[in-house]
Amino acid sequence: MSPKITTEVLRQLRQVMKSSRYVAEPLQAYIVPSGDAHQSEYIAPCDCRRAFISGFDGSAGTAIVTEQKAALWTDGRYFLQAAQQMDSNWTLMKMGLKDTPTQEDWLVSVLPEGSKVGVDPFIIPDDQWKRMSKALKSAGHILVPVKENLIDAIWVDRPQRPCKPLMTLGLTYTGLGWKEKITALRAKMVERKVLWLVVTALDEVAWLFNLRGSDVEYNPVFFAYTVIGIDTIRLFINCDRMADPSVREHLLLDSTLDAEFKIQVMPYESILMELQAICVGLSHKEKVWLSDKVSYALTEAIPKVHRYLTPYTPICIAKAVKNAAETEGMRRAHIKDAVALCELFNWLEKEVPKGSVTEISAADKAEEFRSQQYDFVDLSFATISSTGPNGAIIHYKPAPETNRSLSVTEIYLLDSGAQYKDGTTDVTRTMHFGIPSAYEKECFTYVLKGHIAVSAAIFPNGTKGHLLDSFARSALWDCGLDYLHGTGHGVGCFLNVHEGPCGISYKTFADEPLEAGMIVSDEPGYYEDESFGIRIENVVLTIPVKTKYNFSNRGSLTFEPLTLVPIQTKMIDVSLLTQKERDWVNDYHQKCREVIGAELERQGRNEALQWLLRETVPITDTN
Amino acid sequence: MSPKITTEVLRQLRQVMKSSRYVAEPLQAYIVPSGDAHQSEYIAPCDCRRAFISGFDGSAGTAIVTEQKAALWTDGRYFLQAAQQMDSNWTLMKMGLKDTPTQEDWLVSVLPEGSKVGVDPFIIPDDQWKRMSKALKSAGHILVPVKENLIDAIWVDRPQRPCKPLMTLGLTYTGLGWKEKITALRAKMVERKVLWLVVTALDEVAWLFNLRGSDVEYNPVFFAYTVIGIDTIRLFINCDRMADPSVREHLLLDSTLDAEFKIQVMPYESILMELQAICVGLSHKEKVWLSDKVSYALTEAIPKVHRYLTPYTPICIAKAVKNAAETEGMRRAHIKDAVALCELFNWLEKEVPKGSVTEISAADKAEEFRSQQYDFVDLSFATISSTGPNGAIIHYKPAPETNRSLSVTEIYLLDSGAQYKDGTTDVTRTMHFGIPSAYEKECFTYVLKGHIAVSAAIFPNGTKGHLLDSFARSALWDCGLDYLHGTGHGVGCFLNVHEGPCGISYKTFADEPLEAGMIVSDEPGYYEDESFGIRIENVVLTIPVKTKYNFSNRGSLTFEPLTLVPIQTKMIDVSLLTQKERDWVNDYHQKCREVIGAELERQGRNEALQWLLRETVPITDTN
Repeated sequence: MSPKITTEVLRQLRQVMKSSRYVAEPLQAYIVPSGDAHQSEYIAPCDCRRAFISGFDGSAGTAIVTEQKAALWTDGRYFLQAAQQMDSNWTLMKMGLKDTPTQEDWLVSVLPEGSKVGVDPFIIPDDQWKRMSKALKSAGHILVPVKENLIDAIWVDRPQRPCKPLMTLGLTYTGLGWKEKITALRAKMVERKVLWLVVTALDEVAWLFNLRGSDVEYNPVFFAYTVIGIDTIRLFINCDRMADPSVREHLLLDSTLDAEFKIQVMPYESILMELQAICVGLSHKEKVWLSDKVSYALTEAIPKVHRYLTPYTPICIAKAVKNAAETEGMRRAHIKDAVALCELFNWLEKEVPKGSVTEISAADKAEEFRSQQYDFVDLSFATISSTGPNGAIIHYKPAPETNRSLSVTEIYLLDSGAQYKDGTTDVTRTMHFGIPSAYEKECFTYVLKGHIAVSAAIFPNGTKGHLLDSFARSALWDCGLDYLHGTGHGVGCFLNVHEGPCGISYKTFADEPLEAGMIVSDEPGYYEDESFGIRIENVVLTIPVKTKYNFSNRGSLTFEPLTLVPIQTKMIDVSLLTQKERDWVNDYHQKCREVIGAELERQGRNEALQWLLRETVPITDTN
Repeated sequence: MSPKITTEVLRQLRQVMKSSRYVAEPLQAYIVPSGDAHQSEYIAPCDCRRAFISGFDGSAGTAIVTEQKAALWTDGRYFLQAAQQMDSNWTLMKMGLKDTPTQEDWLVSVLPEGSKVGVDPFIIPDDQWKRMSKALKSAGHILVPVKENLIDAIWVDRPQRPCKPLMTLGLTYTGLGWKEKITALRAKMVERKVLWLVVTALDEVAWLFNLRGSDVEYNPVFFAYTVIGIDTIRLFINCDRMADPSVREHLLLDSTLDAEFKIQVMPYESILMELQAICVGLSHKEKVWLSDKVSYALTEAIPKVHRYLTPYTPICIAKAVKNAAETEGMRRAHIKDAVALCELFNWLEKEVPKGSVTEISAADKAEEFRSQQYDFVDLSFATISSTGPNGAIIHYKPAPETNRSLSVTEIYLLDSGAQYKDGTTDVTRTMHFGIPSAYEKECFTYVLKGHIAVSAAIFPNGTKGHLLDSFARSALWDCGLDYLHGTGHGVGCFLNVHEGPCGISYKTFADEPLEAGMIVSDEPGYYEDESFGIRIENVVLTIPVKTKYNFSNRGSLTFEPLTLVPIQTKMIDVSLLTQKERDWVNDYHQKCREVIGAELERQGRNEALQWLLRETVPITDTN
């Protein structure tokens, strides 16, 4: 990976930062956030502005360019990748390390007195705007909304915004029709005494209308906003898409309907104007509900007195708690996904010793096996197929210039997943195709202990996921080890592989409590720079569990693994496991045998079945 | 405990809420916070305004009185106590339970349109003012600062503000002279580019000047503020106290000193005026540092542009990291404290079966034994001496009307501590003087497992204490049990028994990272309403620990128990402990034998020594 040479684009950006064509007064700094106008984590090529200016194309990071300096903030997953992708014009700010300044502190330390700092108001979330604006103001600077995006202004060959066909989802997949979802939503709006709800997150719009798209790679979403009133529905979307008869029928656009379910389709770009028009018509105490992560531009469109801000929209919370149809879909998807991975690992075991498999060809093979499964749509994220030192780059994506051959001497880490019409998968396995060293096994076993500690945890109803994060680290901590990422994220159902509002991470405090039906990942790891990476990840379903006692009648929860792919026992130092942990491994493998074994048999995949049976032999003291 | 009859005082309060003598316009609600003007947790009798109006005298709680209603918010420690102390005029709001409204939400739900809500601006912390004010404003109400305290206005026999003699502490106890502390502090001020620091917390003033007082029961502090400039020191204190020659000498009030160490003594009440005067003299970018927990009145005295707000002052953080002299002092204090408790428990074991010991007489006896120890000053909080159902009242304090006799059939919980000139102690032991039931032993053992999990935890440098909280609960959660309080708090050195900025609690996210030298309590529990209470509490010192590996060169920490009092092995179900946990118990008891045994011998307390030896026999499988 060679860094992007950014000298010329930085010169151009600094020019437009002073150009009266774009700004009333010259800017001393310009902020380029990671997201798009929907605060998406994964974005369309046309929105990859931070990657364009800095070269760093990981999923999280903010660039700030001043007259003299250029700096990029990202988190521990991306320290190595960012360092490799950026040239010497850029300073890497490693978030989470003690001495790394915040963006605000850094700006205050480098800006000349009375500076103007620009940002695209459609891209910066309102809560970030507020924090940044306050900090700058208290140091005598001003944060300025710059209507035209300055990166777009200098980005000559910027791609078009995608506008791909939509897919409709029936009740078998969704469990609830969109009219029922809107009815439930309006009940929540009445409860909170709000008249309007503004929805800007792409996955929330897709979930609400039981539609899927493919505008953003790996994320089955489409560019749209919606504004739900007590008796109106407005959908802001490129109108061409509404020509598709199956979409028209799904949304009942040509039917005679009660007014409250009549969808008014409006141009995507008209959201700001329409929102302003709605607000003009509001009387004193009437409120508009929106998330505090919505862009500054749309938030500002609603006069303060009419705003009802919450960290999450009611759709975000409803979407996170999967209903029976969604849970069953997720189970089916994970069974199919496990079949594909058994095929892959069986194939790798045969091919790797020949020296003919690379990170890229292994990833391609994984996709090939997955695409053979029923209702396969796409991958759910760029496959992380990494061997040896590449495994230590936490969100590594193999490229021709970094591509390594898999071998019998290095650890192989595969973090991959798919979108099936019935569910989304995300699974990481770490394998050795030769004889792992005692140290590799030791580290793997600590990670496994952490994985089990979370997966088998029992905790009261109402517990927030961040309270479980330390369970995943305890065994590593005991030996002075750790990993610099969270332990788990919410997973959508044929939707984004990362979704809120729940998760398992030491970094957050604003997560919603876990409840039965929520689905998260459990993925502790251990990474040694320039040497190897280990991660063990299952997607798990939050389920009720009966305990011996029941304090305050609260009830308890635990997790059930949806992912059913063998964990390589060759990598386990069994002497480091407690009896309870050994039982967990053996029970888990027994379930893999039963469920995935049956499906492999049904699909006539006998060689993979034999591999599964070999890999799930119970572990014992003498392993 | 019979409730306080509040009908008359509520009537009077509602009258002054409308009286033009106190308020420009009638108030529809009046908030009575828990604290004093220094945001102290424990307060002098003259500041117990919330107890006066509501009857509830626990350490945490906020009362709100409207024209029709009266409600009190408190946390899980106090649900039972508050319910017993308040009459039917009051509604108890149980904080932390799902359906309990916040104070803001409740106010909004009960107030008539356009209401005025009053509060004493000297008592409400600025951050709470802001939150409350914003919430009320967005619902069309106003939060109003009411200069004269309305409780004081109706409180006929309100006690005087105490003004007790001061005690000076030499270097043997403090390790650092006050001039050195101020020099270190000014270095931090220069680092943050602030010109002034305002200190309002009583324990911070006491720590900074190496002075102690006794204005607040159990807390060796005195009413004072200080404002530190780059070359000035102003101490706001009742000037009479400065007449004491030893204090004058300690503070070098009569010496010729460099100006920067010359202490200007000013009247306690003049803080607001002086602060305003300081701010008048500030030029544009000059800043005044203060905690965001400082009162609204003092915060407002500093124009916004001059405020530098942080969650904690640099004194709070420096005070939390004990130096060698303080650590040694804490060790000595805990040894003496353990001697006293060995005497007590030996005495209880003989006396309880006779039926002659009550909760109050046991508490008195504990104080008697403690007061025999060198440098004993006072208790560090009201002794919680509780047996049977009283043990389930988490912060119970025995009173004549609730006083129960200790017996051989009920669990006894003693949470107590003392102030010695060299350190502060806080220890809880739960004992049975007969034969505990299997269920009692089971619950005790889960609590013990949680206690050990925290005490023996190894974690990276820079870890915040709240990340350890779940370790204390895991064994309880496995069986569906839990406790409704945090796991630990910072402990001062001959200062407040509760201090910031570190702690171990699921409730906070704003704690400072743990570092070597910080001292916290480790006190999980289990409580069964109307039946029994169990808690096991040690004070522990954060220490560096060498681990097998050292990821990112961060270094690791663990805890060393300073409390060395036997944990009753009779209460342990050994079959529920892992080998590691058994080893921990035996190692701990071995250390009690060595350290406390030696001191008991030195003090010639042979009977208590025999008790210690009996109680610290190693546990084995056959227990």
